[in-house]
Amino acid sequence: MTAPATAPRFDILGIGNAIVDVVAPVGEAFITRHDMRKGSMTLIDAQRAEQIYAAMPPGQESSGGSAANTCAVAAGLGARAAYLGRVADDQLGAVFRHDIAAAGVHFPTPPLVGGAPTARCLILVTPDAQRTMNTYLGACVSFGPDEVDADAVAAASVVYLEGYLFDESAAQAAFRHAAALAHAAGRQVALTLSDSFCVDRHRAAFRALVRSHIDILFANEAELCSLYECSELADALGLARREVALAAVTRSEQGSIVIRGEETAEVPAAPATVIDTTGAGDAYAAGFLTALTAGRSLAACARLGSLAAAEVIGHYGARLLRDLRAEAALD
Amino acid sequence: MTAPATAPRFDILGIGNAIVDVVAPVGEAFITRHDMRKGSMTLIDAQRAEQIYAAMPPGQESSGGSAANTCAVAAGLGARAAYLGRVADDQLGAVFRHDIAAAGVHFPTPPLVGGAPTARCLILVTPDAQRTMNTYLGACVSFGPDEVDADAVAAASVVYLEGYLFDESAAQAAFRHAAALAHAAGRQVALTLSDSFCVDRHRAAFRALVRSHIDILFANEAELCSLYECSELADALGLARREVALAAVTRSEQGSIVIRGEETAEVPAAPATVIDTTGAGDAYAAGFLTALTAGRSLAACARLGSLAAAEVIGHYGARLLRDLRAEAALD
Repeated sequence: MTAPATAPRFDILGIGNAIVDVVAPVGEAFITRHDMRKGSMTLIDAQRAEQIYAAMPPGQESSGGSAANTCAVAAGLGARAAYLGRVADDQLGAVFRHDIAAAGVHFPTPPLVGGAPTARCLILVTPDAQRTMNTYLGACVSFGPDEVDADAVAAASVVYLEGYLFDESAAQAAFRHAAALAHAAGRQVALTLSDSFCVDRHRAAFRALVRSHIDILFANEAELCSLYECSELADALGLARREVALAAVTRSEQGSIVIRGEETAEVPAAPATVIDTTGAGDAYAAGFLTALTAGRSLAACARLGSLAAAEVIGHYGARLLRDLRAEAALD
Repeated sequence: MTAPATAPRFDILGIGNAIVDVVAPVGEAFITRHDMRKGSMTLIDAQRAEQIYAAMPPGQESSGGSAANTCAVAAGLGARAAYLGRVADDQLGAVFRHDIAAAGVHFPTPPLVGGAPTARCLILVTPDAQRTMNTYLGACVSFGPDEVDADAVAAASVVYLEGYLFDESAAQAAFRHAAALAHAAGRQVALTLSDSFCVDRHRAAFRALVRSHIDILFANEAELCSLYECSELADALGLARREVALAAVTRSEQGSIVIRGEETAEVPAAPATVIDTTGAGDAYAAGFLTALTAGRSLAACARLGSLAAAEVIGHYGARLLRDLRAEAALD
């Protein structure tokens, strides 16, 4: 990593699958009947998307996508955010583009014309507030190295990569390209592991990427244990401490643990009424990176992450409904 | 009105503008700055829709349309409901079609192909929970007498007409056609006045329709006073008593008054935490008609109307999030 040549224009630049969420409440039986793994994200094709949608209750549509959520929440906390991801030139693409711009996030990626439609994620929320996600990637699969805006990447303090992109090889290549550009410009690279099944599918590639390209790793307990194939979190944390400069591990209602070299910070979860856990990890990363790029302590970073996550899980939808700028600044 | 020849297949058949709502919270200043009339519905063209949308915060999309909301809520209360309205063959049209079918409402109207896009309503919710609506009618303007499904109309106990349709002359003609078909089949015809400004725009036509075609009138205080050009509700109720067989008048937190000949029922509002008043009147009509077509008393009809309205104003969006079938049956 070289020293940065110029002051960053963005605090965070996210790269991820640009997705419109369709959220509906269902009973436990719906998950079983449709052979889904509760709490996980499954990739589906257009036909399966049609089948699930036809069986789903009425939904509420809103812009989603893991890294896009992180960028939107970070902007809502006062960070300067940018995002790269691919939508189509259709109605849902226009909704996505409107929402991320209205959240204050710079979004330079041009839409895909004449190809697959904008991606959507069918999110089923069970009475226990868990979300089960079924993603039809649509236009996202056409995101590759050419879609990595080199100027934007070089202008961001932290480039934040969404693990879900590992399901597409063009996107994997885009990741490596973005990480190389960021490091060449003296910036940091963060990765979220996204989903333990996604880690299972791509463990070796994730391990290699973390060792060679990642400065800041986000994961929940299950994802970190899956990455290092450990049954105990303490063992996984020990391995992470050796392989990555900084790791923030979320533990639902037990809060989060952050490690950086010999340093460790444990911070409790912020109080929350849990309605829908969609976007909890995305919001945590947003709060964490907003505080980190503002030069705060590890504990302050974790606290702002927890605060943002608590707001997002208190309602349907993965982005802030309440302005947290004052809390973010006062921490 | 002739006696019905056969048992109805539907309790309620709604006819209205088929619209996808885009809901976002705004401050009072947004309403003033964009020269809107708070609490009202304004028709806008495609260009103004673009302008307002570009200025709006991130939104949540869900199926709306006044009569469509009424049908969806009525189905959620256990009524057999059908709906006629026009969407386009685009992504938002598919969302509308999915949601109304998933709510259990029969929706036979074919989509408009190669014309204007599906209608959308930009709904701005201020901190006082009032909603200000800006509607781009899109494909709705192509709804005319040909779109009135005669079999469905003849098969419904009550045909429910949305006053907003009076803004289009083809839709006005469709109204009269549907009312004539319904009466020929021995069914009843209900109308909601929708909006006091809409009544202002079409007062004479509304008065003539009410006198000649309407059996059941829904209105709020302002709409009924506008229809009869009275400053006092008591005077307007006196006129309504002479012109229409049954009228249900909603008065926000003061509950509702129902009149039928010499009979009067006053029912208090159901307790509610008010988050977003969008759809309150639609839900009231749904509860009222569900009870009415089940042969309940006027007071029981008003109570179920109030219960449905209270559920809907407790969250963003105009349709039920909670199952009220048990409460509807137990009343």
